[in-house]
Amino acid sequence: MKVTVNRKAHFNAAHRLYRSDWSEEKNLSVFGKCSNKNFHGHNYEVIVGVTGEIDKETGYVIDIKILKDLIKTEIEDAFDHKNLNIEVPEFKKLNPTAENIVVVIYNKLFKHMAANHKLEVTLYETPRNYVKFSGKS
Amino acid sequence: MKVTVNRKAHFNAAHRLYRSDWSEEKNLSVFGKCSNKNFHGHNYEVIVGVTGEIDKETGYVIDIKILKDLIKTEIEDAFDHKNLNIEVPEFKKLNPTAENIVVVIYNKLFKHMAANHKLEVTLYETPRNYVKFSGKS
Amino acid sequence: MKVTVNRKAHFNAAHRLYRSDWSEEKNLSVFGKCSNKNFHGHNYEVIVGVTGEIDKETGYVIDIKILKDLIKTEIEDAFDHKNLNIEVPEFKKLNPTAENIVVVIYNKLFKHMAANHKLEVTLYETPRNYVKFSGKS
Amino acid sequence: MKVTVNRKAHFNAAHRLYRSDWSEEKNLSVFGKCSNKNFHGHNYEVIVGVTGEIDKETGYVIDIKILKDLIKTEIEDAFDHKNLNIEVPEFKKLNPTAENIVVVIYNKLFKHMAANHKLEVTLYETPRNYVKFSGKS
Amino acid sequence: MKVTVNRKAHFNAAHRLYRSDWSEEKNLSVFGKCSNKNFHGHNYEVIVGVTGEIDKETGYVIDIKILKDLIKTEIEDAFDHKNLNIEVPEFKKLNPTAENIVVVIYNKLFKHMAANHKLEVTLYETPRNYVKFSGKS
Amino acid sequence: MKVTVNRKAHFNAAHRLYRSDWSEEKNLSVFGKCSNKNFHGHNYEVIVGVTGEIDKETGYVIDIKILKDLIKTEIEDAFDHKNLNIEVPEFKKLNPTAENIVVVIYNKLFKHMAANHKLEVTLYETPRNYVKFSGKS
Repeated sequence: MKVTVNRKAHFNAAHRLYRSDWSEEKNLSVFGKCSNKNFHGHNYEVIVGVTGEIDKETGYVIDIKILKDLIKTEIEDAFDHKNLNIEVPEFKKLNPTAENIVVVIYNKLFKHMAANHKLEVTLYETPRNYVKFSGKS
Repeated sequence: MKVTVNRKAHFNAAHRLYRSDWSEEKNLSVFGKCSNKNFHGHNYEVIVGVTGEIDKETGYVIDIKILKDLIKTEIEDAFDHKNLNIEVPEFKKLNPTAENIVVVIYNKLFKHMAANHKLEVTLYETPRNYVKFSGKS
Repeated sequence: MKVTVNRKAHFNAAHRLYRSDWSEEKNLSVFGKCSNKNFHGHNYEVIVGVTGEIDKETGYVIDIKILKDLIKTEIEDAFDHKNLNIEVPEFKKLNPTAENIVVVIYNKLFKHMAANHKLEVTLYETPRNYVKFSGKS
Repeated sequence: MKVTVNRKAHFNAAHRLYRSDWSEEKNLSVFGKCSNKNFHGHNYEVIVGVTGEIDKETGYVIDIKILKDLIKTEIEDAFDHKNLNIEVPEFKKLNPTAENIVVVIYNKLFKHMAANHKLEVTLYETPRNYVKFSGKS
Repeated sequence: MKVTVNRKAHFNAAHRLYRSDWSEEKNLSVFGKCSNKNFHGHNYEVIVGVTGEIDKETGYVIDIKILKDLIKTEIEDAFDHKNLNIEVPEFKKLNPTAENIVVVIYNKLFKHMAANHKLEVTLYETPRNYVKFSGKS
Repeated sequence: MKVTVNRKAHFNAAHRLYRSDWSEEKNLSVFGKCSNKNFHGHNYEVIVGVTGEIDKETGYVIDIKILKDLIKTEIEDAFDHKNLNIEVPEFKKLNPTAENIVVVIYNKLFKHMAANHKLEVTLYETPRNYVKFSGKS
């Protein structure tokens, strides 16, 4: 009897789509205005879903306060009001597309998950564009 | 060729996280301010999804009016403007966590489902916290 | 390592629930006010999800600009500010229920999908009613 | 000490922008695709605001249930699942632009307002376009 | 050149509409199910707007962090996860209608406002019902 | 009989709160993490409201398509996917706080307004922080 518990959070960050091993011209031709060398930014909204059995004693799958604190420590503190390309180590050599960011978030949270919990992360780059990742399948 | 039809509804209720077989102290230490003995409350939003084949004759999986009425009778009439702990029989001995509420809602609706329909229930406790249940797997 | 990329779009259209091989009376008795012979209408919101591997080179599953343009050409240009029953060929003989519309949208987009991409379409008929289709299973 | 009480409601309707004293060509040249002769439609969301003194006895400016019922009788029953041009008498000779609709709604509600209450109506034609009217000034 | 700066916050609370100087019967007949003696509850969303001149030096009307902290101290800490009737002193003898709550919130914040700042408070009791107060006029 | 017509639009941009005539230390001490020298960013949502008489002939206060195109030319093309501090001339010497941005947007649009139209601009920096400006009063 598995239930999924979801928690929303958010962070504001600058980024550009960019590969350092490509020329500026190639970056612009592939990524267009998203590759603007002076950066642009987003209010990222992130939804973290944890699926597992309801604990008989507490009635929780996971204490949402623990999940909230984990998201704060691992994601908000690391990404909020940051430049993803310059200041977040994971994107030093990884292009910060929404797809790559959602996998990075997943991996940062996954190492704290209990073995019997399944994780899914949804990331809104804008209210109109979002991505979802639930681990290797 | 299965389609999922979803209907949103809502109810406003008071609750506290509480086990009657625990002391007040233990309840407070495990559930924190959510266990406030004078209760707090939420605007619960519930999304009921029914998955099944499209009926060739009507073009419906399920008549959404029937689904809307079922949610009204089974969920809104039972939970709206109620104190979940005191006035809803299912929570007399069951801690009304979001996880337990979503399972109770699922069970109340499931007994009305056609055999070839799959049910999923999503429950927003706040705009930032929500849970999802789609039956035993 | 599959990620789902989602893009939201919208179109405004008139429709009525109606089978031309049924009498007006039968249409009204089955579909109620949704069968009003003078039509009613909706702001349809559509979410298109494409699931696939992240391209190592670009960091994209699919360039969201390509997805956006595809939705514009296949869906918005075909449905926006139209009367679905009269002006959209797919509904000449198909009752434009939300269920049937979401399958039509899916089929129009599916023929443009890469072989290794999975497609899912969500269609909001109102903020309270929506349907989802992810292909024959 | 005046407070504004607001209530949201909604109706789904078909319409076209159209003046019967103009040719089809002129209608199309002025109103574009919004003048499609087969109609299109919207999920209209309406917010009704009533400003007045708080009643010392009840703590209400206006009983929201009374406001809700008034909106149902005057607006939802009159407009929902209707073709505004054909079936709503107010638009027989009045072009149903959002601006004209919001004034019609205001006038239908205004005649029920207490003398010391101020009325304001907001009408969303789409989530991106909305109009507001608060009476002649 | 006055700009309004707005900040959203929220709190979850239980309440009932109730006058202690009325009988239970009279309370029920006037306030209906909102007067349920076991309480019900809401996710209240509050929007605080401060209008004033832009400070030439900082480009701020008010530092939003200061506004955020003020809302936390005065409103969230006082109301969140509380029973408004029992635990919030302002409602010991004041019926906690949305109208009365918004005035109480206004008064708690107003005493911290600079003389040249204008305050407006919007309170959502549900996503469909909200009230607004901007001081005595 | 004046009606307000509102149109929503959006742009994504990077910025930092920063005065070039202050030291980095002073900028950081006043603006905190919002002054990060590598920038952060937002999905700005902008609502433009135009108040005026309904044109008897068209039923419009202003053709929303004209308003939409004006916002695209003056605001979206100028700000979207840009670094406000570096690439938008208005902020070369003006700190891009939400307050200053909303005044800049107002001024860029105001010069296109008809003499009998009143303009109001609302700017969401995040879903929780927004500002409003309606001209000098």
